[in-house]
Amino acid sequence: AILEVNGNLSCRCAKTTSGYISPKKYESIEIRPVGSSCRRTEIIIKLRSSGKVCVDPEAPWVKKLLQRIASTKKK
Amino acid sequence: AILEVNGNLSCRCAKTTSGYISPKKYESIEIRPVGSSCRRTEIIIKLRSSGKVCVDPEAPWVKKLLQRIASTKKK
Repeated sequence: AILEVNGNLSCRCAKTTSGYISPKKYESIEIRPVGSSCRRTEIIIKLRSSGKVCVDPEAPWVKKLLQRIASTKKK
Repeated sequence: AILEVNGNLSCRCAKTTSGYISPKKYESIEIRPVGSSCRRTEIIIKLRSSGKVCVDPEAPWVKKLLQRIASTKKK
């Protein structure tokens, strides 16, 4: 990922996508909360096919995804 | 993390904690949805102080954490 040089030195995502990515393609979802070194929440999806995608935390489907994970019951 | 050998060969978490961990200590939160190789959702918190902790996705504070991230607005 291209590093930004506007004070957000250790943000991982230089740009994000709002395009939907099917959960079947995920290996994992990494959430980097707003922290001392990056001034915005970052959500990075690691794909099974290798590669990572930065998604927009504001995108409706991303919010639904997180809410669904939060509400899953043990099977 | 100790690998389990009961079919969940590539689960990362052999055990989880329900104990509250303050968001200030997080560097990132990794969510590994139920997948082909691990039959349960795993949530791994990477600590700033180094080290990782597997937390119980069912723990109320974990659910609240995910919901809060899902509902954050851009500042």
